[in-house]
Amino acid sequence: MNTNSNIGINTTERESGLGEECGVFGAYDFDGADIASTVYYGLFALQHRGQESCGIAVSGTSRPIENTKLKKGMGLVNEVFTEESLNDLKGDIGVGHVRYSTAGSSTYENAQPLVLNYIKGILGLAHNGNLVNALSLRKELSMTGAIFQTTIDSEVIAYLIARERINSATVTEAVKKAVQRLEGAFSLIVMSPRKLIGVRDPHGFRPLVIGKRENTYILASETCALDAVNAEFVRDVLPGEIVTISPENGIESDKSLCLPEDKVARCIFEYIYFARTDSYIDGINVYESRIKAGKFLAMDSPVEADLVVGVPESGNAAALGFSLESGIPYGNAFVKNGYVGRTFIKPKQSNRESSVQVKLNVLKEAVRGKRVVMIDDSIVRGTTSDRIVNMIKEAGAKEVHMRVSSPPFLWPCYFGTDVPGREELIAYNRSIEDIRNIIGADSLAYLKIDRLPQLCDGLSICNACFSGKYPIAPPKEDIRGERTED
Amino acid sequence: MNTNSNIGINTTERESGLGEECGVFGAYDFDGADIASTVYYGLFALQHRGQESCGIAVSGTSRPIENTKLKKGMGLVNEVFTEESLNDLKGDIGVGHVRYSTAGSSTYENAQPLVLNYIKGILGLAHNGNLVNALSLRKELSMTGAIFQTTIDSEVIAYLIARERINSATVTEAVKKAVQRLEGAFSLIVMSPRKLIGVRDPHGFRPLVIGKRENTYILASETCALDAVNAEFVRDVLPGEIVTISPENGIESDKSLCLPEDKVARCIFEYIYFARTDSYIDGINVYESRIKAGKFLAMDSPVEADLVVGVPESGNAAALGFSLESGIPYGNAFVKNGYVGRTFIKPKQSNRESSVQVKLNVLKEAVRGKRVVMIDDSIVRGTTSDRIVNMIKEAGAKEVHMRVSSPPFLWPCYFGTDVPGREELIAYNRSIEDIRNIIGADSLAYLKIDRLPQLCDGLSICNACFSGKYPIAPPKEDIRGERTED
Amino acid sequence: MNTNSNIGINTTERESGLGEECGVFGAYDFDGADIASTVYYGLFALQHRGQESCGIAVSGTSRPIENTKLKKGMGLVNEVFTEESLNDLKGDIGVGHVRYSTAGSSTYENAQPLVLNYIKGILGLAHNGNLVNALSLRKELSMTGAIFQTTIDSEVIAYLIARERINSATVTEAVKKAVQRLEGAFSLIVMSPRKLIGVRDPHGFRPLVIGKRENTYILASETCALDAVNAEFVRDVLPGEIVTISPENGIESDKSLCLPEDKVARCIFEYIYFARTDSYIDGINVYESRIKAGKFLAMDSPVEADLVVGVPESGNAAALGFSLESGIPYGNAFVKNGYVGRTFIKPKQSNRESSVQVKLNVLKEAVRGKRVVMIDDSIVRGTTSDRIVNMIKEAGAKEVHMRVSSPPFLWPCYFGTDVPGREELIAYNRSIEDIRNIIGADSLAYLKIDRLPQLCDGLSICNACFSGKYPIAPPKEDIRGERTED
Amino acid sequence: MNTNSNIGINTTERESGLGEECGVFGAYDFDGADIASTVYYGLFALQHRGQESCGIAVSGTSRPIENTKLKKGMGLVNEVFTEESLNDLKGDIGVGHVRYSTAGSSTYENAQPLVLNYIKGILGLAHNGNLVNALSLRKELSMTGAIFQTTIDSEVIAYLIARERINSATVTEAVKKAVQRLEGAFSLIVMSPRKLIGVRDPHGFRPLVIGKRENTYILASETCALDAVNAEFVRDVLPGEIVTISPENGIESDKSLCLPEDKVARCIFEYIYFARTDSYIDGINVYESRIKAGKFLAMDSPVEADLVVGVPESGNAAALGFSLESGIPYGNAFVKNGYVGRTFIKPKQSNRESSVQVKLNVLKEAVRGKRVVMIDDSIVRGTTSDRIVNMIKEAGAKEVHMRVSSPPFLWPCYFGTDVPGREELIAYNRSIEDIRNIIGADSLAYLKIDRLPQLCDGLSICNACFSGKYPIAPPKEDIRGERTED
Repeated sequence: MNTNSNIGINTTERESGLGEECGVFGAYDFDGADIASTVYYGLFALQHRGQESCGIAVSGTSRPIENTKLKKGMGLVNEVFTEESLNDLKGDIGVGHVRYSTAGSSTYENAQPLVLNYIKGILGLAHNGNLVNALSLRKELSMTGAIFQTTIDSEVIAYLIARERINSATVTEAVKKAVQRLEGAFSLIVMSPRKLIGVRDPHGFRPLVIGKRENTYILASETCALDAVNAEFVRDVLPGEIVTISPENGIESDKSLCLPEDKVARCIFEYIYFARTDSYIDGINVYESRIKAGKFLAMDSPVEADLVVGVPESGNAAALGFSLESGIPYGNAFVKNGYVGRTFIKPKQSNRESSVQVKLNVLKEAVRGKRVVMIDDSIVRGTTSDRIVNMIKEAGAKEVHMRVSSPPFLWPCYFGTDVPGREELIAYNRSIEDIRNIIGADSLAYLKIDRLPQLCDGLSICNACFSGKYPIAPPKEDIRGERTED
Repeated sequence: MNTNSNIGINTTERESGLGEECGVFGAYDFDGADIASTVYYGLFALQHRGQESCGIAVSGTSRPIENTKLKKGMGLVNEVFTEESLNDLKGDIGVGHVRYSTAGSSTYENAQPLVLNYIKGILGLAHNGNLVNALSLRKELSMTGAIFQTTIDSEVIAYLIARERINSATVTEAVKKAVQRLEGAFSLIVMSPRKLIGVRDPHGFRPLVIGKRENTYILASETCALDAVNAEFVRDVLPGEIVTISPENGIESDKSLCLPEDKVARCIFEYIYFARTDSYIDGINVYESRIKAGKFLAMDSPVEADLVVGVPESGNAAALGFSLESGIPYGNAFVKNGYVGRTFIKPKQSNRESSVQVKLNVLKEAVRGKRVVMIDDSIVRGTTSDRIVNMIKEAGAKEVHMRVSSPPFLWPCYFGTDVPGREELIAYNRSIEDIRNIIGADSLAYLKIDRLPQLCDGLSICNACFSGKYPIAPPKEDIRGERTED
Repeated sequence: MNTNSNIGINTTERESGLGEECGVFGAYDFDGADIASTVYYGLFALQHRGQESCGIAVSGTSRPIENTKLKKGMGLVNEVFTEESLNDLKGDIGVGHVRYSTAGSSTYENAQPLVLNYIKGILGLAHNGNLVNALSLRKELSMTGAIFQTTIDSEVIAYLIARERINSATVTEAVKKAVQRLEGAFSLIVMSPRKLIGVRDPHGFRPLVIGKRENTYILASETCALDAVNAEFVRDVLPGEIVTISPENGIESDKSLCLPEDKVARCIFEYIYFARTDSYIDGINVYESRIKAGKFLAMDSPVEADLVVGVPESGNAAALGFSLESGIPYGNAFVKNGYVGRTFIKPKQSNRESSVQVKLNVLKEAVRGKRVVMIDDSIVRGTTSDRIVNMIKEAGAKEVHMRVSSPPFLWPCYFGTDVPGREELIAYNRSIEDIRNIIGADSLAYLKIDRLPQLCDGLSICNACFSGKYPIAPPKEDIRGERTED
Repeated sequence: MNTNSNIGINTTERESGLGEECGVFGAYDFDGADIASTVYYGLFALQHRGQESCGIAVSGTSRPIENTKLKKGMGLVNEVFTEESLNDLKGDIGVGHVRYSTAGSSTYENAQPLVLNYIKGILGLAHNGNLVNALSLRKELSMTGAIFQTTIDSEVIAYLIARERINSATVTEAVKKAVQRLEGAFSLIVMSPRKLIGVRDPHGFRPLVIGKRENTYILASETCALDAVNAEFVRDVLPGEIVTISPENGIESDKSLCLPEDKVARCIFEYIYFARTDSYIDGINVYESRIKAGKFLAMDSPVEADLVVGVPESGNAAALGFSLESGIPYGNAFVKNGYVGRTFIKPKQSNRESSVQVKLNVLKEAVRGKRVVMIDDSIVRGTTSDRIVNMIKEAGAKEVHMRVSSPPFLWPCYFGTDVPGREELIAYNRSIEDIRNIIGADSLAYLKIDRLPQLCDGLSICNACFSGKYPIAPPKEDIRGERTED
């Protein structure tokens, strides 16, 4: 989804740090049993992809017009849905969505799925990704009278499908025509009255997989959601593929929009950070990728040390890889307080408590007197790294050597993550020595950029946030709307 | 607004009884002060027009695109808004809405105002009324690719405005072109980046008035909302008139859509029941109308009795009129429990408590041994009247003579009220004697239909629910959508 | 209940104006059916006696120890209880309570009923009234090691019962011994494992009645609560009487604590304002009392006028009495907005809206050009009267003659109402002419103090707030606790 | 605290599994600054000790009677407290509590701290532990007229303090006399008007530490709470010690109740599972203890394997210890979904999803084809172990060798944990081979009971749940109350 095109209804302050933008999940039980609780557990397994808001829409394929039900809300899956609200969501076809966490509470309108009525009845959409040409599409649609009630890309996509549907024989055809207008990242699930459709953009930025449990077919952002609902992994949706799931024809595939593999641009950061370690994306296990990243760091930037630790949770796998390669013992140096919810009150500047301290504590015994290699998945602004290095030193570590399992962030991402503007990136216009100095580490090394393809066995990837080599030209204009006459 | 065209997202069970459908309020402070609390108190004074949901949208005229804020919710004005949420609604132009009360809690999507972005920026709409041609307009719009996220008429109107705006010089021109496509009842407030526009349909079904407080201009469904915010009544918006309020030109009026007075069709039930007694509609005080209705009943259907009472609250004014005309003393026979909120648990059939009993009790001393004239504003299904007549008799009244300050309901309403289908109307296919017998009264009389125009000094009115003479042809087809292929 | 002895845990800001302090309701179904919903509707009918908080405790007489359930909360009966929570309250004996409305939300601990375990099992208490010797009892109990978790009198009473129970054969005997220690006002319902006990203090300050519906016995503050649950009125609990209700013995009565009738001191303000007009207290109908008060005003303080109106709702009955006696027509001059809930945002001083205006509007047509007699039940601080007189004059009334259906407040009440301190009372140290001048009326008269006994047919009453003649000596010391060493 | 003595008001269903029962935190800022946010972050760091409910009471030492404020609620610290509610908690001395998580939501009354008024003013109590003689104390107190509004031990302790206070010169003296009556486990914080008192029972079952930050003194269950608020660790409160903190005298210590070290009975399960790994208890680092446990397992029950993994989170440290000792590589085999909140909807028996599966997933790549040593901290009922072993095998592990970092549970605990009754314990009446067979592991070994003292460097411990050797005789009778006459 896209939060860039702001119509001004709701604005939300983004967290500092780095965030994934969405997870999608769809399911269709051909036997007609209710599907809502399966969508619920699927979304629960995708919660790491978005904690701001979530929603589920279900429809009964026998009488979709009357039966479509939608429940959305701000917060986590386990906060938004109650047993009662799940029971109300009667229907055998459903689509769900989790969205990025922000500070504001007022973006209900932007929560997904989007449910709407158009020429052919009901349509439900859940989108993960970010369109590069959303603004120009909005403008174009506005010029012919479209109205927008949200700021999400799904609404643009829905309009395109609705317009194409007029002259299309099937909803799949309309979806296909519509997505050909889209530039950017999109893993999309469309629920129509009697079909569940999955689309992955031709570059394949975001993942999308197919699963099956008895007579229930599933589309999900990650395989971990299939495991959570006891479904078998069938296969990945290919970059550029459109799959149409229906009781009549099972899974139908249209691969005519697929690009050659070397044009595909899987987001490498899914492997490094976004996806859950137990997921597989295009055949590659995320955990294995992270172990490899740690091994490469140990090969390329070795250091004499007594202990390798990860910054929890995302740094742990790479730390283990570093340990396996280097022979330096792996251990834990931190205790993370997992009870931070969205209503947690952050310490103010004026408080005697600090935000990092209340969330993370150092195991003094583990690090005292030791030379510690500390692995994190990335450094964005550097403020947290600074604080953590300091904490380990205060706990008595002799040396702290920081290793980062990705290259330095140098460029903004336009494809569904919120890597911030260049001025905020610590690596922008700074040498690695400068950064090391700022965060107070005894040594600092990043993963080399040419190691990235090896993390996923040579699959074609997008590394634009590190290299600036964008697979699609980034948008030229600011996408905020302008003032008008009256 | 229109709840008939159901896209199936949310369905709500309507209360038995008779309900008004909405109240609208808009305000624009030319001095740039925040307007939200004025809209809040205005809506609070219009709460009787709708208790299901409410909302306020405000915009800063200096930078509307970024500043537009919307807060909607299920429930009463005092339940939905907190001091904090009002403070967040920064802006000098605003529009608010209250909507009919229903049992369901899930119609958030249908709450108003509708706020959207279109070719010329932000647009806010609040609508009171019901379109007769909403379905055909939806179909027509769908045929060219429109998508609908709600089931309210405002969305249809917004689309028409958006499409007309493309070839219109001003937003007022677009609104004018759009409303020419509408058939039915609409009192409409449109908030554009720098104008507040009010429209009343040419038949003038629903009221709309203009008020002013210092440099703040106000549009509201009823004058009681002006009193509540200490504003002066300026004048009614005329049936068919479009008023455009802006700092540059104050109040501009376009009356070119106005019909001759004899084509106007003010809803007579606004005077009889919907509007608050302290309001004035088109120059007529509602309280006076009700006093008159009671007087007419006393003239046309006199009875020997000891006491005149009204069914609270809406029957009280007519009861006083009956007393003044007949000389029979006026009194109170009931105590109404005013603490029934939307979460009140209604007694079940199986309970030993009854729904009427817990809400209404008879003052035994007031009625014991007396011949009582009981005035109510209408009888819809007859079940409540039956119960109340019975309660008075059980309390010891010798006779109960029921007088109804409106004629019998015989026809459904398509213009913004929910008079139910004919089969549910007690008066349908029954003689007055039959009805008297059912409700157990000693005598029963209704206001004569030819008295209706006299309630408002001869103004042209709509009495279709009593006469079947619809000022606009009612819709021919059921407006639910049909199933489609996929 | 007593809010004077503040242990400092929760403080609440009291409303300006005058408030009743509590309502109590108990029920016991000898057939063993669940009683919670009956208690719910009973409390709902007593809601006017307290809007701050409410609670219901139920117990199953077969296994009370395990089955006792309590649900309390801040807010109205219809806000605190849901269908689910009522269903959870399984039990055939129950007691409920409504408490005075305050601004704060944090007095959960002080909500009633109080439920506790003592030497003989479970005990539930609901109390209406105010003890004069609560502080000295608390001190005395503290001296022997008592601890207090609330600031309510019920806790003191519970302690006394618990201590007396040790050497008493029955719970009724313990209750009797305990209440002999109490000075002040108390209408008390005690739920023990197998008995429901009602006590009314010997002065009979607060009402308490017995009702019956089939095999269910009921105790309630007012008869209106019996009507609401379809129960028959059996009789009043006599001042000083203890009634014990059990399946074995039905209603047992102990009248040994009763005083002679001339020592009884029924709160006259129950008749004037607190009780609901449809209730009967000690044989006198409240509505009739108020009609009489109006008649006395017309006799004692007549005035030439065109219209008699009441300040809603409490002034209406007296206004009707004034009209009946004087022959001046009765009418309505006000519309009251009934949607003010506990979360209503009051206009601030700085607002352009006023607090009275948003809640009350004048029917201009009703008063324009008229000489109006306006009846209110009392004047406490005078600020509201001032505003209302002004509103009527602004609406065009020629003259406004205020008549008050009670004498001037001159003394604080220590028996369960919150008549404020003398300095705040407008009548304190002022002549009636002074007051008339302050509120801007053309004439002003109060009910004569010697009319009060006639309002209730000569029953013995307490009129201390008007006369200073307290039936029990008021407490001498401030009852706030003092600081201690450590 | 004690949830065994049920007065029947609220019952809660306990989670299967093993739970710690409480955490306590108190702070006193001698400079008079507000302390509530420090208590908040302190409790947040102790959240692992109790997730059912929490509360904070604060008092202003200058005017405690009026200023004491209490806020309690069901749920996590970050759910119960808002910025607004923290701001309302003004005061320089405070005490907080977190309580065990249960399924029910209705135990508000049992939440702590307990705040009460007694002969000498306000008293606040927070208690961690379980009294063995609570029932007999309750009975004894009841016999002299005590009433109980909760079922927690704190109320019993408060009564004892209140009674002793009468003849004691200081609150500390009263606390001392009171705790001499207590048998069982208690780490207690008492807030009096001008003192903060900490007590640890003579056996020292539960931890309690003293911290300091500038002029603020702190008492807390664990040192991790000191780290979270940037305070320095001063020292442990000794088993049997009473510390009194006041501005006048700083920290005063009374050790006269201390037992000889060999009578001390520290709960060994604090080291094995309850406490956070970064805490130190009586000089021993918890993380180190767990590492040692793993090492002992490797020494005593070695196995040929390819990978050592812990069941997250509590098994990880012991797994690392096993790896360090055995040389078998450490790794992660699981991904735990950390988003399970208290409103999470558990899959029903009938669901196609399983409860373990949605919370825990196996990293297939990590275990496939491997011989895995899996370390967990304990096995209670065995159902979860069974499921997890199965999951690893399904993921392709060749062998699964389970090692448990504690001996088999054979006896119930009466000192503040909820080790269930013997019949529910898988180890009761079963051989280790039987258990191995049930859970499906290829081998199974527990930590030897004689290794336990070595986990904490020879400190004197309680191991009754493994050995049945209770340091205090367990209670003889069931502590539920019985029915009474009336």
